[in-house]
Amino acid sequence: MEGLEDNEELLEAKALLDSHINDTIEDEMSGVDIVECLKIIKRHDEKSYFEYLHTLDIESLSNASIEMPDYILKDVIDLLPKDKLVEVVEDLESDDQFEFLENIDEIDGKKAREIFDDLSDEDKKDILKLSRYEDNQAGSYMQIELFKANANETVMEAVDRLRDLRHADEIDYVYHLFVVDDKDVLKYSIPLADLIIYNFSLTLEEVVRSAKNEDFRPRSALDTDDINEVASEFQEHDMSVMPVVDSRGVLVGRITSDDIYDFIQESATEQIYNLAGLNDEAEEEDISFAKAGKARAFWLCINLVTAFLASFIIGFFDATLQKYVALAILMPIVASMGGNVGIQALTVTVRRLALGEIEYKDAKKVLKREISIAVINGAIFAIAVALIASLWFKDHMLGVVIGLSMIINLSIAGFCGAAIPIILKKFKIDPAVGSSIILTMMTDIIGFFSFLGLATWILV
Amino acid sequence: MEGLEDNEELLEAKALLDSHINDTIEDEMSGVDIVECLKIIKRHDEKSYFEYLHTLDIESLSNASIEMPDYILKDVIDLLPKDKLVEVVEDLESDDQFEFLENIDEIDGKKAREIFDDLSDEDKKDILKLSRYEDNQAGSYMQIELFKANANETVMEAVDRLRDLRHADEIDYVYHLFVVDDKDVLKYSIPLADLIIYNFSLTLEEVVRSAKNEDFRPRSALDTDDINEVASEFQEHDMSVMPVVDSRGVLVGRITSDDIYDFIQESATEQIYNLAGLNDEAEEEDISFAKAGKARAFWLCINLVTAFLASFIIGFFDATLQKYVALAILMPIVASMGGNVGIQALTVTVRRLALGEIEYKDAKKVLKREISIAVINGAIFAIAVALIASLWFKDHMLGVVIGLSMIINLSIAGFCGAAIPIILKKFKIDPAVGSSIILTMMTDIIGFFSFLGLATWILV
Repeated sequence: MEGLEDNEELLEAKALLDSHINDTIEDEMSGVDIVECLKIIKRHDEKSYFEYLHTLDIESLSNASIEMPDYILKDVIDLLPKDKLVEVVEDLESDDQFEFLENIDEIDGKKAREIFDDLSDEDKKDILKLSRYEDNQAGSYMQIELFKANANETVMEAVDRLRDLRHADEIDYVYHLFVVDDKDVLKYSIPLADLIIYNFSLTLEEVVRSAKNEDFRPRSALDTDDINEVASEFQEHDMSVMPVVDSRGVLVGRITSDDIYDFIQESATEQIYNLAGLNDEAEEEDISFAKAGKARAFWLCINLVTAFLASFIIGFFDATLQKYVALAILMPIVASMGGNVGIQALTVTVRRLALGEIEYKDAKKVLKREISIAVINGAIFAIAVALIASLWFKDHMLGVVIGLSMIINLSIAGFCGAAIPIILKKFKIDPAVGSSIILTMMTDIIGFFSFLGLATWILV
Repeated sequence: MEGLEDNEELLEAKALLDSHINDTIEDEMSGVDIVECLKIIKRHDEKSYFEYLHTLDIESLSNASIEMPDYILKDVIDLLPKDKLVEVVEDLESDDQFEFLENIDEIDGKKAREIFDDLSDEDKKDILKLSRYEDNQAGSYMQIELFKANANETVMEAVDRLRDLRHADEIDYVYHLFVVDDKDVLKYSIPLADLIIYNFSLTLEEVVRSAKNEDFRPRSALDTDDINEVASEFQEHDMSVMPVVDSRGVLVGRITSDDIYDFIQESATEQIYNLAGLNDEAEEEDISFAKAGKARAFWLCINLVTAFLASFIIGFFDATLQKYVALAILMPIVASMGGNVGIQALTVTVRRLALGEIEYKDAKKVLKREISIAVINGAIFAIAVALIASLWFKDHMLGVVIGLSMIINLSIAGFCGAAIPIILKKFKIDPAVGSSIILTMMTDIIGFFSFLGLATWILV
């Protein structure tokens, strides 16, 4: 049965790729889809997989290029002739060229340099420009290809140039005309929907001046702006493209909605993974999992140290535990509830910091909220647990001990859950990385210490 | 000091809003920014806050409308005259009209109906159309306003109508012309950048036929499609707008990039929150936190039950614990490491399911990967813990016991972490909701049972 299912999957992937290659498919396949098919075919039939790599045309390869996981990219650069790889890179837009070359460079630095050397001077210049930016800067997300015009040109002249660009297939997704002055400083951004309705013999400056109700002042990003801020601007102002300027105001590129989808999606994945002690880049490889395993082991190692710290605390109270075995039975409850209350506060705070809903200056407000919730829930669950424990072990004082320690632990858990990410953020450390381990260390230690300490004091 | 800081915050918010109202600000404020200012002013100076609500013009109110938290929206509907509210709704686009009226309806159903009754017939019709869709359907995210033309119209005629629409400020963000036949069935989608370069006296049908290299067949969504699929299409094909058709192919609306930003962001927040036992809607309120506290208490309650289950398991072994207090000291380590290994596998699986990277049919592959990583890491940490425990308590057999129980618990944790979300998804239950609680219940119970069980068997 298993063999049959696998075979079906393989046949389906091959049929899809065949109809894509022979152009008999209704909708063009996206790069993501092509890579999905290649993954399946490689898994079941390595020989066909190599044939498909050779058969795919430049455009398909370039669409798929930046979606390829390392193990497929490795085959591509090992197998395809350098000239074909150069053509694939040339078919990409500047931001994707840069990303693809970076991916190749990680696998085979020599090959990346060889490909780079064979590119046109213009492509080389664009890639070098993009390579100067930090990973989190708007510049590293921008595309250098854009459609711009001088304010003194007529609409007609601009449209003629657009026609040439479109016919040469040089640029996609043009929704705005960026208007610059003689020094290439960005002055206006005119949506094509507005441009199209004016007299084509007017100059762009005249169009702007004759439009009374419209505001063509551009909302632009500085190339050194944090991409996080830029993504927020896109969302707040419902934008689909934003021009990027340098410190002198010169138009240097544009960021489009697809960059923003990817950024939002990837930042969220990074946060979710970091909170769970995972590394998002290491988890990307799904064939070899040595990288993922190692990255996870790192966090497990830290967790082991904190777990031993907690055991060490318990060890102080061995005499008490020997006397009251009920304490050993109940102590995981205090730790587990503390951990959960803390993780709730931590997760809300990490996410709201990431979304820009709160900042360091809101610390007081956030702490007040999180502590209030933790204290109220702490009190309710402390009473519940105290009652159950009293009845179970027929010992009222045991109930008092566990109730008190839960109030202490859950309140501190709420405080730490909110405080840890805010403090990390203040010191410019990613509040999602490692914060849950610090938190559970604190809730474990405080939970065990308060419970066993109070027991030693009150019961013994 | 505190008073001063607060005062500064208030003054800044007032100054911003004032310059927005008097139009002396460079960049127009977004709805999000306006709401942020209102929140601050309400916190410190209720009287000014009410004045600002009255002073803000229709456009600012409509920009801010769907960004308002319930407690501000409540003031708005209590304070502003119905006529003004009707104008605010009329200024919105259909999807936002629908969302805003829904928000009002949750606070004051009677007011929502009154406002609805006063809207124009066309607005009413649009809102009723949108209200027929389920929350997760593409139709409920679409905007009904769009720019379309008949295939037999000339480019010039279409542009003239666009001019009228733009001058009447009826439509924004037009980047494509949707071309329909006489029955309103969608035939083509022509980017304005392409439309503009053709002879304006051609009909749209002629434009499409004369364009040899271009493919104007539209990539559209069905109104009943899952919005998750639509968002993936946007990302895979770098789209900024997608036409929406009904089952007959009739063009009924469009989805734009801003809907997709919001959807991606909100789904990610929902996943992060659900994994931590939080409800994303309950957490939105940041003034009153009764709702958030109650939602959190629900998950804490379930966690308490599972924690008592774990205690119950420990209770079976009270005789063993009494004899070997070292077991009580070490047992949290087995549970904590198991929980962490499980959460790593769970988080990766939940996120990859959400991103569509894996499906039920990939279960075998995913389980293989996660179990492999868990078993290898399990073995490494089992040996480490066994050695430390042996040395600490000078008892080799204790080391053997904890080592064995860690291998068992960590392997099962990896398996459960991957299996639980895949099974939940198979039964159409959100794999992020409740899965971490089920998981830690299993790792706690298996951890304690295997450790104390092995100890009773081997040591006693």
